[in-house]
Amino acid sequence: MIVLGIDPGIALMGYGVVEFKSNRVKMIEYGVVSTSSKTRTTQRLKILYDNLNDIINEYKPDEFAIEELFFNKNVKTAIEVGHARGVQVLCAENNNLPIYEYTPLQIKQAITGYGRADKKQMQLTVKTLLNLDKLPRPDDAADALAVSLCHCFSQRFKEEFRI
Amino acid sequence: MIVLGIDPGIALMGYGVVEFKSNRVKMIEYGVVSTSSKTRTTQRLKILYDNLNDIINEYKPDEFAIEELFFNKNVKTAIEVGHARGVQVLCAENNNLPIYEYTPLQIKQAITGYGRADKKQMQLTVKTLLNLDKLPRPDDAADALAVSLCHCFSQRFKEEFRI
Repeated sequence: MIVLGIDPGIALMGYGVVEFKSNRVKMIEYGVVSTSSKTRTTQRLKILYDNLNDIINEYKPDEFAIEELFFNKNVKTAIEVGHARGVQVLCAENNNLPIYEYTPLQIKQAITGYGRADKKQMQLTVKTLLNLDKLPRPDDAADALAVSLCHCFSQRFKEEFRI
Repeated sequence: MIVLGIDPGIALMGYGVVEFKSNRVKMIEYGVVSTSSKTRTTQRLKILYDNLNDIINEYKPDEFAIEELFFNKNVKTAIEVGHARGVQVLCAENNNLPIYEYTPLQIKQAITGYGRADKKQMQLTVKTLLNLDKLPRPDDAADALAVSLCHCFSQRFKEEFRI
């Protein structure tokens, strides 16, 4: 099974494609789609949608996992990233993919067994689990791989996380 | 010129189609697209996108105006409505429409000349300006007509509101 994990965002959307087979995980591809703050917001949303659609067409994932948004302060940012994330799940929906979401805490616990793991610990664990030569960069791509891994490790109770 | 105004939302998206010609406004159509809270969020986003796309194809607006979101408390709601609004502006962008946004204050001022006008005053003014037989219902549809009217009345300085 191929899993596409997404770290939602408007300036940088991380993606991580992982194969999950016989309880083993294998990295297929990871990266980011970036949009410039000089580009109109609506155009940025279209760029994100179109690129994500290309990624889905290229890697043909079976399942789509995305990080849940958490903000406690800046409502303006929450709305802006909400726009981008809405477009990202629409793209998965239009491609008939089952969609799952996980909180940052759930992702950390699934990957490191520890909900308070820091960014560096997370990236090292992702690198180890996927047998990578180096730490995945940028952070958004590493986060997306972590979302994919979290979803692979949650197969037995994944329906709980379906949205 | 045909203007499509949108009151963004996930449970109810109001739309108002107005013709603006020789400085006169004429109501073409208004209504709401509703989605049930029992439907999966991602499916709701798809329903909103597809219906809005149908509305654009039917009325072929020249310009698209949408209310800006303001929340100061519930970040969870802000993210959810942000998802819907993101999908709505993506639809306009995919149809190559110029997109404009107005704050609730700007809309009230444009319609009634008074930023603190209440809902009832707004609806009465919309009814009068568009020469309607009755108050437009539900509120979301009336709000969408107000967005359209605000955009018609802002033609001379509209570039300021383009997003």
